[in-house]
Amino acid sequence: MAPHLNTSAAAKLPPVKNTTADRLLVAASELMIERNSIDVSLSDIAQKSGINAALVKYHFGNKDGLLLALLARDAATEVTHLEYLLAQPLTPTAKLKLHIAGIIKAYYQFPYMNRLIHYLLHESSTEAADEVSKFFVGPLLDFQRRLLAEGVAAGEFRNVDPVLFYTSLIGACDHLFFGRHAMTRAAGVGPVTDKVCRDYIAHMEALLLAGMLTDKEKVTAG
Amino acid sequence: MAPHLNTSAAAKLPPVKNTTADRLLVAASELMIERNSIDVSLSDIAQKSGINAALVKYHFGNKDGLLLALLARDAATEVTHLEYLLAQPLTPTAKLKLHIAGIIKAYYQFPYMNRLIHYLLHESSTEAADEVSKFFVGPLLDFQRRLLAEGVAAGEFRNVDPVLFYTSLIGACDHLFFGRHAMTRAAGVGPVTDKVCRDYIAHMEALLLAGMLTDKEKVTAG
Repeated sequence: MAPHLNTSAAAKLPPVKNTTADRLLVAASELMIERNSIDVSLSDIAQKSGINAALVKYHFGNKDGLLLALLARDAATEVTHLEYLLAQPLTPTAKLKLHIAGIIKAYYQFPYMNRLIHYLLHESSTEAADEVSKFFVGPLLDFQRRLLAEGVAAGEFRNVDPVLFYTSLIGACDHLFFGRHAMTRAAGVGPVTDKVCRDYIAHMEALLLAGMLTDKEKVTAG
Repeated sequence: MAPHLNTSAAAKLPPVKNTTADRLLVAASELMIERNSIDVSLSDIAQKSGINAALVKYHFGNKDGLLLALLARDAATEVTHLEYLLAQPLTPTAKLKLHIAGIIKAYYQFPYMNRLIHYLLHESSTEAADEVSKFFVGPLLDFQRRLLAEGVAAGEFRNVDPVLFYTSLIGACDHLFFGRHAMTRAAGVGPVTDKVCRDYIAHMEALLLAGMLTDKEKVTAG
């Protein structure tokens, strides 16, 4: 266990992005994946990274600061992917499919991300919730707004309200991970495996693009 | 404030369904709606109902017991509605539309229901989570299984996995209420009003039944 020094003065300095902070975030995310829990302490992270606990406190102030920094790191990566995706020479339909798969894969790859978002939005401070909105909800909603507009302009998508669309897509993806644990208590529901993820990506693509009516019914309805 | 008596012996007796218990549940749900929070104590409920706090403790044991009884009451009403809906002389498509509207309206009418489910599934005891699964997740999944099978048999629905369908529909509906608070911090997103609920019902019906591709694209894809 690394020594835990009193650094109340240092903790008041603004956190600086540098390689020590990056190494601490890597240690934090590895611990969360190993434990399948976001319940890791600053001293756990000091021990895992081999970096003095005083430096952990210096960079993140407290545990919520660390969780926020970790989510900010992962969200920044995802936002870069979104911008990259939007710029590709693909149809809006193809981009939407890749986006659906991207969300589900990101949640699956970083199982703690979903829990971090729920914790920071609902059980942490108002400031933390504002930050999550600024670097996660806002950019994601903005991306979807632009993708939907592109699809409408190309004649591929009908007009869909972006805020309602965001709610339904993110809610559905989120529930595979947040709600599955509860569902596994019901008959015939297993844990989320690679195969379940692939199946859910295919399910969401088909559902959002073409719905569940058979072609016959669509013709009748139209 | 009603007197708070020691009733440890009485609390060990099994709770009995009777009018006192029903009146307590009415008081609990009214308090939760008034406060827009599930954070109500047994003594708050005693005060609101005018029933002795000893009787509150006798019927529910502790706060989680009360929350579970309240959710069980509301879930039982909803399950009755589901059975009634399934028995109606309507097409599976019409039943699915009514089901989508029913879920969203139930969440809107009982704003505490969603929070109760999250609390009991994720922050309470394993026993409480098992109970929620037994009287809420299980019957809802079973209903959807039967409705989907009916739709496939009638040639109206394509084959959709019931567990994946449950996840996407419940996740999307849940997120309007659980996720909206966080979204309102982002630009252009207001609170959930009557109109937002109606719009979301229309959005979910259109999305789940026919998807978001224009008819032209559906023909091309098919």
